[in-house]
Amino acid sequence: MGDSFGHTFRITTWGESHGGGVGVVIDGCPAGLHIDLEDIQGELDRRKPGQSKITTQRKESDTAKILSGIFEGKTTGTAISIMVDNQDARPQAYKHLKEIYRPSHADFTYDQKYGFRNWQGGGRASARETIGRVAAGAIARKLLHQLGSIETLAWVEQIHDIRTLMDPTSVTLEQVEASMVRCPDQEITEQMIACINKARMSGDSVGGLIRAQVRNAPPGLGEPVFDKLTADLAKAMMSLPATRGVEFGLGFDSVLMRGSEHNDRFHTEDGRIQTDTNRSGGIQGGISNGEVIELRVAFKPTATINFAQETVTREGVSTELRAKGRHDPCVLPRAVPMVEAMINLVLLDHWLRNRNKKLADLEG
Amino acid sequence: MGDSFGHTFRITTWGESHGGGVGVVIDGCPAGLHIDLEDIQGELDRRKPGQSKITTQRKESDTAKILSGIFEGKTTGTAISIMVDNQDARPQAYKHLKEIYRPSHADFTYDQKYGFRNWQGGGRASARETIGRVAAGAIARKLLHQLGSIETLAWVEQIHDIRTLMDPTSVTLEQVEASMVRCPDQEITEQMIACINKARMSGDSVGGLIRAQVRNAPPGLGEPVFDKLTADLAKAMMSLPATRGVEFGLGFDSVLMRGSEHNDRFHTEDGRIQTDTNRSGGIQGGISNGEVIELRVAFKPTATINFAQETVTREGVSTELRAKGRHDPCVLPRAVPMVEAMINLVLLDHWLRNRNKKLADLEG
Amino acid sequence: MGDSFGHTFRITTWGESHGGGVGVVIDGCPAGLHIDLEDIQGELDRRKPGQSKITTQRKESDTAKILSGIFEGKTTGTAISIMVDNQDARPQAYKHLKEIYRPSHADFTYDQKYGFRNWQGGGRASARETIGRVAAGAIARKLLHQLGSIETLAWVEQIHDIRTLMDPTSVTLEQVEASMVRCPDQEITEQMIACINKARMSGDSVGGLIRAQVRNAPPGLGEPVFDKLTADLAKAMMSLPATRGVEFGLGFDSVLMRGSEHNDRFHTEDGRIQTDTNRSGGIQGGISNGEVIELRVAFKPTATINFAQETVTREGVSTELRAKGRHDPCVLPRAVPMVEAMINLVLLDHWLRNRNKKLADLEG
Amino acid sequence: MGDSFGHTFRITTWGESHGGGVGVVIDGCPAGLHIDLEDIQGELDRRKPGQSKITTQRKESDTAKILSGIFEGKTTGTAISIMVDNQDARPQAYKHLKEIYRPSHADFTYDQKYGFRNWQGGGRASARETIGRVAAGAIARKLLHQLGSIETLAWVEQIHDIRTLMDPTSVTLEQVEASMVRCPDQEITEQMIACINKARMSGDSVGGLIRAQVRNAPPGLGEPVFDKLTADLAKAMMSLPATRGVEFGLGFDSVLMRGSEHNDRFHTEDGRIQTDTNRSGGIQGGISNGEVIELRVAFKPTATINFAQETVTREGVSTELRAKGRHDPCVLPRAVPMVEAMINLVLLDHWLRNRNKKLADLEG
Repeated sequence: MGDSFGHTFRITTWGESHGGGVGVVIDGCPAGLHIDLEDIQGELDRRKPGQSKITTQRKESDTAKILSGIFEGKTTGTAISIMVDNQDARPQAYKHLKEIYRPSHADFTYDQKYGFRNWQGGGRASARETIGRVAAGAIARKLLHQLGSIETLAWVEQIHDIRTLMDPTSVTLEQVEASMVRCPDQEITEQMIACINKARMSGDSVGGLIRAQVRNAPPGLGEPVFDKLTADLAKAMMSLPATRGVEFGLGFDSVLMRGSEHNDRFHTEDGRIQTDTNRSGGIQGGISNGEVIELRVAFKPTATINFAQETVTREGVSTELRAKGRHDPCVLPRAVPMVEAMINLVLLDHWLRNRNKKLADLEG
Repeated sequence: MGDSFGHTFRITTWGESHGGGVGVVIDGCPAGLHIDLEDIQGELDRRKPGQSKITTQRKESDTAKILSGIFEGKTTGTAISIMVDNQDARPQAYKHLKEIYRPSHADFTYDQKYGFRNWQGGGRASARETIGRVAAGAIARKLLHQLGSIETLAWVEQIHDIRTLMDPTSVTLEQVEASMVRCPDQEITEQMIACINKARMSGDSVGGLIRAQVRNAPPGLGEPVFDKLTADLAKAMMSLPATRGVEFGLGFDSVLMRGSEHNDRFHTEDGRIQTDTNRSGGIQGGISNGEVIELRVAFKPTATINFAQETVTREGVSTELRAKGRHDPCVLPRAVPMVEAMINLVLLDHWLRNRNKKLADLEG
Repeated sequence: MGDSFGHTFRITTWGESHGGGVGVVIDGCPAGLHIDLEDIQGELDRRKPGQSKITTQRKESDTAKILSGIFEGKTTGTAISIMVDNQDARPQAYKHLKEIYRPSHADFTYDQKYGFRNWQGGGRASARETIGRVAAGAIARKLLHQLGSIETLAWVEQIHDIRTLMDPTSVTLEQVEASMVRCPDQEITEQMIACINKARMSGDSVGGLIRAQVRNAPPGLGEPVFDKLTADLAKAMMSLPATRGVEFGLGFDSVLMRGSEHNDRFHTEDGRIQTDTNRSGGIQGGISNGEVIELRVAFKPTATINFAQETVTREGVSTELRAKGRHDPCVLPRAVPMVEAMINLVLLDHWLRNRNKKLADLEG
Repeated sequence: MGDSFGHTFRITTWGESHGGGVGVVIDGCPAGLHIDLEDIQGELDRRKPGQSKITTQRKESDTAKILSGIFEGKTTGTAISIMVDNQDARPQAYKHLKEIYRPSHADFTYDQKYGFRNWQGGGRASARETIGRVAAGAIARKLLHQLGSIETLAWVEQIHDIRTLMDPTSVTLEQVEASMVRCPDQEITEQMIACINKARMSGDSVGGLIRAQVRNAPPGLGEPVFDKLTADLAKAMMSLPATRGVEFGLGFDSVLMRGSEHNDRFHTEDGRIQTDTNRSGGIQGGISNGEVIELRVAFKPTATINFAQETVTREGVSTELRAKGRHDPCVLPRAVPMVEAMINLVLLDHWLRNRNKKLADLEG
């Protein structure tokens, strides 16, 4: 239990790193949306392994197959099923891990929870699981674009101790995609690549920060008191592998401010009530206020490292582990489309939920 | 939509700052748990206004009434309804706010979402809404204690720029409750009080950090891939008023570490597999690993300040606002029991969900 | 778990026969709907005990209190809480039942499920629980009326072996309310009253059929494949106390027809595609087709009778029971508003859910 | 929205009659259950087309592929994905139906709801959708058997006007499976086949009744007040294609009984409290009482007939339809495994939910 996400636009994902494939079922997509395979494949390509020298070298084309819910090029309003085959699965490469707990992986906790585990490449705990999310997110993205030019953009702001100071409002998708690490800052990109490579060469790994914005989000998204937009976005972010924290607007930095410094005052411009500043990151009382939504997510360094690590076997006996599987020395470049996908899923779900809030809208 | 939280132990809250009261319905509480009114009242008293000179002076006894679900002193297994009357409601004190949007409050966003709003003391957006959560959390706390001495403890770690460096493992409830700000560090408490008072005198407000631990949580809690323990805790925290960020274990600080520095290695001690360190905060792959669960929540400075602030009316006309309502210059001391309540609700829900995971347990 | 109903318009009920009261929390009601206490009280009065000589003589005014969610006469879009006090509770009247299982009541099953039970008047299993449903249903009714003159009408079609043959399309609310048994057929009403009285005098009870129609339901309501309109209506009906069966359109009688006899052919009239007949009861493939929705619900005879009945104690020892509590010799007259309430709750929920089905509607 | 069913054991189905296949994702299956492909295939074979001369001649092997959630022959506790390819899809055979509404099919209602429809073989409204339910039901069946020899058995009790009077308690699976119509009564089977053949030859169709029993269900299943066992079973039955009504125990016949005749009195036998009779069908107050659970479902005659039928086009113009697709003249023989699957899904879900009801069980 826990494989579904969303209330009105709801996805259910399935699949493991080395099983028969991975996929997603989408329930609640409005009928009549034009969807090409390319809409989905484009996002999967941003997520797939082997994109560059700084990502894992596992070879997967991650080719999407649409099994249901699209007819004559349009969504039918009924369940959309999308799957991707596992091609370069090498279960035998994990055989030595069968009886060993890798530090800071989910091996031990899965065993504790379920009594045994699929030890092939992390099983369900593999980041390969996020393929279904990204495929569904691609549909959400297209719909949000069509409904109101709502655009989610995420990028790598920091790798280890290297951080871009670029003005977030100026960042474009083109800049992000032009960078091997998905950092819009060209100069910093080079430093980040060097940092990742250095970690990789020494068998180590690094973490970082992803920053995300939603532009053109209408006011009104978020359902108090529990399904606040901040709450559902935070859940979405923390459901991704390797995330350790999330913050909105000024986030943890707001702790050092006084109310008089932090409050976003209102003014009217172009006939629209706006805030002078956007310290709250576009969400007040858990509801979007029409400003840019701003959040930041912390990712830990990859747990898989090519170091000898002391650990224990399933029976609790001390042993030494040296990882052999292919892995990313830094998950952030490939996590960018995952972050965007989850944000788009949350936003679309709330966009749909928000349509039933005012009697005047219903009587239209 | 959004007034319910939880899957198997599920609460639904209702009520506004100045309406007929506030309350909660609890669905899914196991039958046979002894509950005294005092179990609930004790927690409400920690949350209630007017506790000290640094909290709002609104006078509310916040006396709980149990309306259903407890019979002969025990939970019946059916819906538990608890309510608290509003006593010191002064709706007229908010009349001047009816047509004005307070900066960084939910006035504007509620109007956008619902077309109008209950302008009395924030209506549903008031922190008074959390009474239902705290009442339900008190029941969850008692049950968790009974099921395995699972104990959640939260405290104020930082107010504005004043932070305690106390070793978290040594913190006790007694220390926390002995402090007017709920900081276990006596010396720092005095500085924090001074800081809050200074803000209050100048009509300003301050934010801070709450740190929380869950001790004795069993391994196995958390449901991949979306209902990870981190994910549900993050949602719970971000559903509380004034929260701006949440992190687990080393959180944002893990960004600056290498995998070799961040990984928690395993060893066996007292027949139990444990980690040498706890940088991950007791959760791996979204599932508890039996170590202490660690999280930290950032709260922004209170939006209500006694400063003249530029803002606009509902019609978008520029105006000036000077707040008159009673309010907390710093929400953190009263937020501690709210944080604990939400954590306990998440933990109990996951504890119950986790009972159905292994066939061997079912066949017992 | 099980105290909530609905997906987008969702109610949670609480309360027992002899506790502190009964009530409901409504989540997802659109903002801006005018609600008077009278809208709710009117429906509660149709359900309340002591209405006539053929209903239980328990004295309850069942006066509704609105605790939250209505402000300045309008729904706010946030949780609506409504409660009714228990006034004429006489717990001591049930003391003799504490250790005895009443045949065909829920005493035994509640004990089995929860380990003990609230033995006062049936506790949560009392039909008094339906007050919350009827209160919420009153709001749903008003909204459905406003949204499209959608009207649900239910009536008693049969009591024991006495059945009206009135043409259902001609039945009016006035006719139904003019009848003490809520049968629109005046002549049959007299026979039904006699039948109920005869049962009552002999200490016995009778069952019957309630028939219901929804008029002006738009096409498109119902969500395949599980949340079909038939499926959710069936669940709603079978969640009411004393129901034993439900059928749609020709229902069980369709078994004896051939496809050529049962199919509803289409024609166009007044620019609208309609069916020549309505054997399917207005629902095809689980979705409303714009014709009148037709269903029928079977109620068993009341389990409480003034007969000596052989039964057992909680310990399984044989004993004899003679009921003493006040009760209805026939539940149907008071069940009519319950049936209507549940239908209205299902319809409104599906009406709201159906708004997000076509992209063209969203782009409006 | 509506493609998921269940609370704790939850399935999500996808797929259309002529798309890329059909399937199911199962969330919440306990880990460690041995599952062979044969466990699933055996049930699918009972449902598949072309089994006999009285079912549709569409050729589908309905071969199940397990894509995830089973590892080394055991369930892993994470999402189980099962799919079946569509092989004998002949979309072109439905081209003439593209613009025409078939009477008593879902063509018109799908168009009304979604704006357009997949016209190939009914699209999502095809009974082929139930493959996912039957596959998931096979897993539920195995688990229920293992947990307590809980066995669900359904059979055809009536086809058109031909009804078996066999004592339900004596019916066995072998008898049912030995019959081409899945009626345990050999003699009646012959008459039913003749009846179906007669309908088929004349291009017509017939309906009937399926009766079902659950044997060895423990007391305590069912969650008041909305998720009563009767309520969830009724929803499950009415979510199946072609169902028109459902009843429990004596059902509609109880209307003609007095309370003194209908009540099930208690006695103790073999140390177990039992009822003398089972008129309530094993469920009291929505909770199972440990007796055999009894229900009956009415199926309408198949809507597809080889008669010229007057109908209209999508534009509302009168036209004549003569069906050409392959179809079942009577759905009941193949509906038996669907009914069993849905019952097993409901029972297992409630079995799991019921584990958290008594504190004493939790403290174990």
